[in-house]
Amino acid sequence: MSEKAIFYHAGCPVCVDAERKLADSLDPSKYEVEHVHLGVAKSRIAEAEKAGVKSVPALVIAGQPYHINFGADLAALK
Amino acid sequence: MSEKAIFYHAGCPVCVDAERKLADSLDPSKYEVEHVHLGVAKSRIAEAEKAGVKSVPALVIAGQPYHINFGADLAALK
Repeated sequence: MSEKAIFYHAGCPVCVDAERKLADSLDPSKYEVEHVHLGVAKSRIAEAEKAGVKSVPALVIAGQPYHINFGADLAALK
Repeated sequence: MSEKAIFYHAGCPVCVDAERKLADSLDPSKYEVEHVHLGVAKSRIAEAEKAGVKSVPALVIAGQPYHINFGADLAALK
């Protein structure tokens, strides 16, 4: 059974690139990836912060944040 | 045909975690992942630097660096 992963992004160029190269390239037998655009779904910023996300793009897997390069600070999306 | 990706690491805890959660979880139909321990294979540090790698753990896909969290500066491995 695949584990849930959440890809947090803000539609920025760094985000879109990370989405295409990593988030969309994870083994579907391992992860089911939900995509969350924090610039749109601002209500989910608190949830991302709670998981330790500091910037986007980031993947949260089993509650742990994996920041991929740097697109934007979470603070800039509020 | 799968594209080549190189996972650069230094055996650090952040590296091992990123390896297990991301590098080893990429879709094998998309990427063939080579693992390079830069603490051991110091001769490959120049190649990583040339691809834009600043720290480990990092994946290089199609010549582009994707830094995943932060384990160690490349400079610290020389």
